[in-house]
Amino acid sequence: MPKESEVDVLIIGAGPAGVMCANALSLAGVNMRIVDKRPAKIAAGQADGIQPRTIEVFQSYGLGERLIREGNQMHMAAFYNPSPSGGIEVQANEPFHNSNQLTLSLQITLHQGAIEAIFLDSMRTRGVEVERPIVPTAIEISESEAELKDPTSHPIKVTLQHLDPAAGEDPTEIVRAKFVLGADGAHSWVRKEIGITLDGEQTDYVWGVVDMIPDTDFPDIRCKCAVHSDNGSCMIIPREGDKIRLYIQLSDRDVIDPATGRVDKNRFGPDKILQVAKKSFHPFEISQIGEIDWWTLYLIGQRVATRFSVHERVFIAGDACHTHSPKAGQGMNASMNDTHNLAWKLAHVLRGWADISLLKTYEFERRKYAQDLIDFDKKFSKLFSGKPRTKLNQDGVSHEEFIEAFQTFGLFTSGIGVHYEPSVLSSPAHQPCASNLTVGQRLLPYIFVRAADGRPYEIHDLLPSDTRFKILVFVGNTVAPTQPARVQALADQMAAPESFLQKFGKGKPEAIFDVWSISSAKKTELNYTDLPRLFRPHWSKVLLDDVDMYGRSGSGGYKKYGIDEEKGAIVVIRPDGYVGVVAPFEGLADVETYFSGFMIA
Amino acid sequence: MPKESEVDVLIIGAGPAGVMCANALSLAGVNMRIVDKRPAKIAAGQADGIQPRTIEVFQSYGLGERLIREGNQMHMAAFYNPSPSGGIEVQANEPFHNSNQLTLSLQITLHQGAIEAIFLDSMRTRGVEVERPIVPTAIEISESEAELKDPTSHPIKVTLQHLDPAAGEDPTEIVRAKFVLGADGAHSWVRKEIGITLDGEQTDYVWGVVDMIPDTDFPDIRCKCAVHSDNGSCMIIPREGDKIRLYIQLSDRDVIDPATGRVDKNRFGPDKILQVAKKSFHPFEISQIGEIDWWTLYLIGQRVATRFSVHERVFIAGDACHTHSPKAGQGMNASMNDTHNLAWKLAHVLRGWADISLLKTYEFERRKYAQDLIDFDKKFSKLFSGKPRTKLNQDGVSHEEFIEAFQTFGLFTSGIGVHYEPSVLSSPAHQPCASNLTVGQRLLPYIFVRAADGRPYEIHDLLPSDTRFKILVFVGNTVAPTQPARVQALADQMAAPESFLQKFGKGKPEAIFDVWSISSAKKTELNYTDLPRLFRPHWSKVLLDDVDMYGRSGSGGYKKYGIDEEKGAIVVIRPDGYVGVVAPFEGLADVETYFSGFMIA
Repeated sequence: MPKESEVDVLIIGAGPAGVMCANALSLAGVNMRIVDKRPAKIAAGQADGIQPRTIEVFQSYGLGERLIREGNQMHMAAFYNPSPSGGIEVQANEPFHNSNQLTLSLQITLHQGAIEAIFLDSMRTRGVEVERPIVPTAIEISESEAELKDPTSHPIKVTLQHLDPAAGEDPTEIVRAKFVLGADGAHSWVRKEIGITLDGEQTDYVWGVVDMIPDTDFPDIRCKCAVHSDNGSCMIIPREGDKIRLYIQLSDRDVIDPATGRVDKNRFGPDKILQVAKKSFHPFEISQIGEIDWWTLYLIGQRVATRFSVHERVFIAGDACHTHSPKAGQGMNASMNDTHNLAWKLAHVLRGWADISLLKTYEFERRKYAQDLIDFDKKFSKLFSGKPRTKLNQDGVSHEEFIEAFQTFGLFTSGIGVHYEPSVLSSPAHQPCASNLTVGQRLLPYIFVRAADGRPYEIHDLLPSDTRFKILVFVGNTVAPTQPARVQALADQMAAPESFLQKFGKGKPEAIFDVWSISSAKKTELNYTDLPRLFRPHWSKVLLDDVDMYGRSGSGGYKKYGIDEEKGAIVVIRPDGYVGVVAPFEGLADVETYFSGFMIA
Repeated sequence: MPKESEVDVLIIGAGPAGVMCANALSLAGVNMRIVDKRPAKIAAGQADGIQPRTIEVFQSYGLGERLIREGNQMHMAAFYNPSPSGGIEVQANEPFHNSNQLTLSLQITLHQGAIEAIFLDSMRTRGVEVERPIVPTAIEISESEAELKDPTSHPIKVTLQHLDPAAGEDPTEIVRAKFVLGADGAHSWVRKEIGITLDGEQTDYVWGVVDMIPDTDFPDIRCKCAVHSDNGSCMIIPREGDKIRLYIQLSDRDVIDPATGRVDKNRFGPDKILQVAKKSFHPFEISQIGEIDWWTLYLIGQRVATRFSVHERVFIAGDACHTHSPKAGQGMNASMNDTHNLAWKLAHVLRGWADISLLKTYEFERRKYAQDLIDFDKKFSKLFSGKPRTKLNQDGVSHEEFIEAFQTFGLFTSGIGVHYEPSVLSSPAHQPCASNLTVGQRLLPYIFVRAADGRPYEIHDLLPSDTRFKILVFVGNTVAPTQPARVQALADQMAAPESFLQKFGKGKPEAIFDVWSISSAKKTELNYTDLPRLFRPHWSKVLLDDVDMYGRSGSGGYKKYGIDEEKGAIVVIRPDGYVGVVAPFEGLADVETYFSGFMIA
């Protein structure tokens, strides 16, 4: 008889989506396991681009410092087009992203193994390791409606096979799980087993990828470059150390096996890919120093899974849900943000804080995003793989078209434009009272000053991914004549037994709700200890929309957020950093209704 | 026969001065040992203030991130004075430091044990541990002139006593060292043994210190506060977590044993100190939560050692050299900056790069600083301990006097005003060519943009304490018609065999000299690969005085430094971050002369 055990969450696959989920769950103290079929984490290649919103997510888990230290930062993009004299010439140098909504206007590149290591090391501090090499061989989901609805049940039975068992160990084991996550990649075993299919199709864009240290006179080799040449397109991604990645457009005749229609890596090696690159770079010279670090060939597929879960008990995430071109550096970001969205919801349901129906919002929010991503990718790939406009080819892609797309899509590719549609988790009814904090988007970063000690803080740094809802009480101008009474009345209402804080707080509201107050008064006018106790549970919890002591940052936050400086507003930030609901003081009942939509009293 | 061994540097004492030195030497690969009489590092209390310049020094060793993460940041100071209605009232909230020369306008507080741990953990990654508990019992210095002048000799014999030897181990051992550092505190054994005395005297200012978590309605408890009350002065230093430190002025009658003239800790415990504090805080209430974390009493002494070394073979540093009041948070900073100054010089001499006479500059530079510190402390202590001016006491210290002193001394207390006088290491002859980079002061921080990838960098972050001289070639406007020829001529001169790079570079100049080029041209105008190879040994070494891609930082650096934007200049930064020499291109011979003053060809 194989060993049997129970677990709350079983994660299958320790790629970016899997380790993001495992780290978040372990941080939340959830009983979980994560298994992977590979004997060790990957050492080179694969995904490597981290977008601004994903950097913010890393920071929210306390992992941003290491990411930023180890990775290469990309600040500048360069565009090359055919030159009248033959070869290519630079057209423009541009920043990546529209910056006014970003704390960090940069992308980071770091190979996938190093990214994964950040999560693995973080999990390890809490005693959680990826178990490997292990493959799942069977999965059964209970058909009992009662069992599926009971969040304390273990309705999923997974059979695991240890590929490298210890001597005398039974390689087979049975795990009964409350929830299972299939984060097992584009060829997801979990997805196939639970009968979810992918919608979409293969394109005929064929690309080769080479990671290497270049020897070149090309002056923008450390910029993200889009090169359109008469010999085909290519893209440069500078990476950690002196490495770069080249994406080179290939002809499908060279690369596709006509018999199978699949890419055949035996037909076209890295040397041949580089030969194509060399032609495109003319008049610049490029060759590699030392060995090729990693390489691959691929046909771009653009597909989204029809569903992201079965019964909200077995979920899929990451490449298992969506495949698209790597050109805009979205893949790893989409994957990690899938499980960043899911993990806190699982924690809330497992703790008995939220109804199991909350988990429906995972597919609702992330499938819509995946579809947007594919739509974007179709447009972007077409532009990118298209022939450049020249005298002889007037139908080609012009530089202006390309740049316009680059800028238009910038908000999307940075990840900060992600917008979750209205649902139990996103309630835009009172949107005008915080007109620039779009419900369903992530909180806009801004610097506020801590009242007690004048220390300026990026508000994101105060709102970690700790599974708590952040209740930001913008208390308005608390030194104006009538505002203190309004603020006191709000505090009294929130302290009352029927308030959401008390009703859903289960005797310890600070475990679920993290209350902050932000005054529009100036430090010199406000004694923050005059605020009601509820709005200053600790000296560190009162912020001011005022300049710092040196006039370098701060002030203007109410305006930036579109909140009335006199009257204030209530802003609820979800545990994943997205705006959940906003309301004027008078709309407290609607905040109540919001939480009643998914929380258990 | 006790065990005998040789070592290049023996450090006695593992307080802040000792561990700073040990870490720097171990980073430089110097053969060294460090011993301490305490069985373990201290757990609470002692020094705790880290000034802006010291933060920069931590950053230069790669230790800034942890310091900033673990410490409390102080951004705001508050001043309280007697109120007409009795008790105290706030007079003003002010920033600490004049900010325009600082990257970080803040002080950090963190208890000494945590500070030491940052160094100990760093050293440990290179296999260096503090050996403890060990005391030195004898020290002998050779009297042979020849031996003392030979940097490869071991002219010092130290007998060490292991206080907790392993079973069967001889507790006595003999160490023969090339150099010894006495970093063994105010009652330094090394100082006494080598016959160095302290100049100066005890004051009659008596203070009590208490570390605790406060329960209070005092609104500025998280600011650095100077409180002048009719019941005496006190100072608040907010610390890590919820802790604060109180400095309370006491009456010497209560605290001094009249028989000995010394502070008697039996006469006045923490409860009594707090009683005094409570009176000074009226009408605010203050008491402690839980236990007192640490406390002490002291009489302020203001003394400087007559010499800082004997034969430039045995050195003293830190409290062994200077004692003063802790009020301006200087002690630990002065100590660590002593050995930051010394460590690279020892490394250069031990490697055979510099003549042993270079070590004379340690006393020359640091003793002058210590004297300035005592002078400052005399004025500051007097103001601080003086009675406040009131209607009844018109001779007291006015708020305006106090604030003026606070601001005037700000540059000094921040550590950035430290100015080393002209010597072989500080050559101000060509000062006008970089008029705002004062020779003998630390390099002004500024943000430049890396040419290859548009990444903005604080220049301090590019110039670590790695024992190398940083050769900053401000290449001027390299896209102007005549400048490329001037730059090429300079590169040719520097590449010539008689150039300092080659003459002192010992076949591997990049090990001793770190060359950077900084152009005043704009990114859109300059192809950085057009610069001479000598000025771009790697793609990362060319900086631009241009705005970053988002217009947030950068540009104006030439102006800030007082360097001609067309013609440029050469700026040499010492390994400890101080400006050593500046020169126009035409003054290259004087840079040569500078290095000839202490380097070995």
